[in-house]
Amino acid sequence: MKKMTLNAALDLIKPVDAGKMAEVQNRIDGQTKPPGSLGRLEEFARRFVAITGREDIRRKAVFTFAADHGVAAEGVSAFPQEVTRQMVLNFLAGGAGINALARHAGAEVVVVDMGVDADFETLPGLLAKKVGRGTRNFARGPAMSRDEAVQCLETGIELAGSCQESGIDLVGTGEMGIANTTAASAICAALTGIPVAQVTHRGTGIDDRTLQHKVTVIQRALDANRPDPEDAVDVLAKVGGFEIGGIAGLIIGCAAAGIPVVVDGFISTAGALIASELHPCVKEYLFAAHRSVEIGHIHLLDKIGQQPMLQLDMRLGEGTGAALAMTVIEASLRALREVATFESAGVSKGVQ
Amino acid sequence: MKKMTLNAALDLIKPVDAGKMAEVQNRIDGQTKPPGSLGRLEEFARRFVAITGREDIRRKAVFTFAADHGVAAEGVSAFPQEVTRQMVLNFLAGGAGINALARHAGAEVVVVDMGVDADFETLPGLLAKKVGRGTRNFARGPAMSRDEAVQCLETGIELAGSCQESGIDLVGTGEMGIANTTAASAICAALTGIPVAQVTHRGTGIDDRTLQHKVTVIQRALDANRPDPEDAVDVLAKVGGFEIGGIAGLIIGCAAAGIPVVVDGFISTAGALIASELHPCVKEYLFAAHRSVEIGHIHLLDKIGQQPMLQLDMRLGEGTGAALAMTVIEASLRALREVATFESAGVSKGVQ
Repeated sequence: MKKMTLNAALDLIKPVDAGKMAEVQNRIDGQTKPPGSLGRLEEFARRFVAITGREDIRRKAVFTFAADHGVAAEGVSAFPQEVTRQMVLNFLAGGAGINALARHAGAEVVVVDMGVDADFETLPGLLAKKVGRGTRNFARGPAMSRDEAVQCLETGIELAGSCQESGIDLVGTGEMGIANTTAASAICAALTGIPVAQVTHRGTGIDDRTLQHKVTVIQRALDANRPDPEDAVDVLAKVGGFEIGGIAGLIIGCAAAGIPVVVDGFISTAGALIASELHPCVKEYLFAAHRSVEIGHIHLLDKIGQQPMLQLDMRLGEGTGAALAMTVIEASLRALREVATFESAGVSKGVQ
Repeated sequence: MKKMTLNAALDLIKPVDAGKMAEVQNRIDGQTKPPGSLGRLEEFARRFVAITGREDIRRKAVFTFAADHGVAAEGVSAFPQEVTRQMVLNFLAGGAGINALARHAGAEVVVVDMGVDADFETLPGLLAKKVGRGTRNFARGPAMSRDEAVQCLETGIELAGSCQESGIDLVGTGEMGIANTTAASAICAALTGIPVAQVTHRGTGIDDRTLQHKVTVIQRALDANRPDPEDAVDVLAKVGGFEIGGIAGLIIGCAAAGIPVVVDGFISTAGALIASELHPCVKEYLFAAHRSVEIGHIHLLDKIGQQPMLQLDMRLGEGTGAALAMTVIEASLRALREVATFESAGVSKGVQ
């Protein structure tokens, strides 16, 4: 599946098998508990099994895509741009939030340089997939060309192919990129039509004045670039980011390859929405990890039709929420495999 | 701490050390992430460390208290009363939802017979703490005597003492008892003053007609018994259950012993509320696992001042939500221990 084109990957995506989901649910309904009482764990189990054909997870990986954003020059973040590069080194050294939480979840962290504004020497563990040295400042023109947007998507698709080959049965999305909540808010406003001020928030922790400025910058970017809401690739190119394109591509590739994807927070969900706009069945492969503090997140979640499993007021990104949520999906499979049936345990069924 | 009286345990409960929490938070604020961006994980870590003085968890255990309820005779459940006994055997055989999810979480399951209406031979793994063979039907009089209520509480306190002795650093609550949502709704209405219909729901899955009947039965029980909302032991005795008293006692004992408690769903939270009413500092030791489907649950959570971490539409009880939530607390400690500092990782701090 390496080097597959975007269109070829989209052509491979099928609806998740409803018959298989019903079959799994039927088995769950015979287990010693009131019908439906494990709630969404039952949904996770039946969807995971229908997607993968498996009842366990061999390997799981969180992909942390990193890239810089030209729009950082507008002063929209609380952190300087050099932090993107510094955090990539921190990921590789195992010292970031995602490293700790991935270790907790038993997941690998794959760090992908989609376009950090720095020359990394060949670093062990870093996948070099640079599309450019940061996007252009989209307050003044498109963030990237359409070809670059497609390149981001096809890079993600290629990574999904490598997951299929190496027995990774569950993928999580993550990202790092100073100013990337600005891009995610712009994508959200462009694809949902919701006013910018309602989908723009504090990112890493900006004050009121900077937040107001961020809204103005995004509005200016949308006015200047006029991204076409009917064309998600155009939206990605005009106001997106390289790492967001990588996430969207990874999701498309995973849907094509039959690998479920746990979507992290606000920025990851912007990538998931781009993927979902490109094929209506993509949503069926997604599991929303948590509800971020970012006010735009709930609108993105609504649009991809997913409810978050965790409510922990997190806003770190990197894939941290995805790592936590992976353990919940694993728990759902444990229950599927191990809970006894009414018959085998000699427990009486309900009367209704 | 064995055989401690209720009053002796209550006397031992202190507020969680605010200075220690601030110290831990200060350390978290030096880690390579925007301040506060791990949200409630930061709260869990600082609270756990301040309560226990530890940064890791040696052993964790979910206590699944089982008991029968005389009020089951009123036809308020979708399952026959014999299911309580059958599920105890299922717990001991390792085939129930809590067994699967506790294995997932690496937690032990301790099954406690607080008052199942059955004679168990001495069964390996079952703690025999029977207060009676089920409560009396509280639609017609008090569920138990005040002495029996205190016995339930002191049994839970004794179990907390054994946790302290055996290095259990995190405790989860759970229960099994046909008709025990009826008791939990009655406790909720008695202690919050909220109308019965607003705190009564479908339990294991009753239909509309049975739900209406359940509301009527609870209202009749409150009218007949007049539990004193200023006296939580009276509420437990009049309209509670043996397993709910065991949960309340375990929580009091854990607060006295400095052991954090993950509270499961609706019935467990009814127990937590009784404990919290008996000492104002109990709440500080509690972690609310999830928000149950039961409509009364949110009112109990409000009253104990805790926000649930998971939103998974679960309604199984047994401690299943607590087991899942334990892994989230473990993740918070992993982040505390393992995330690098700005200084050590060479990452620039934010400008605000």
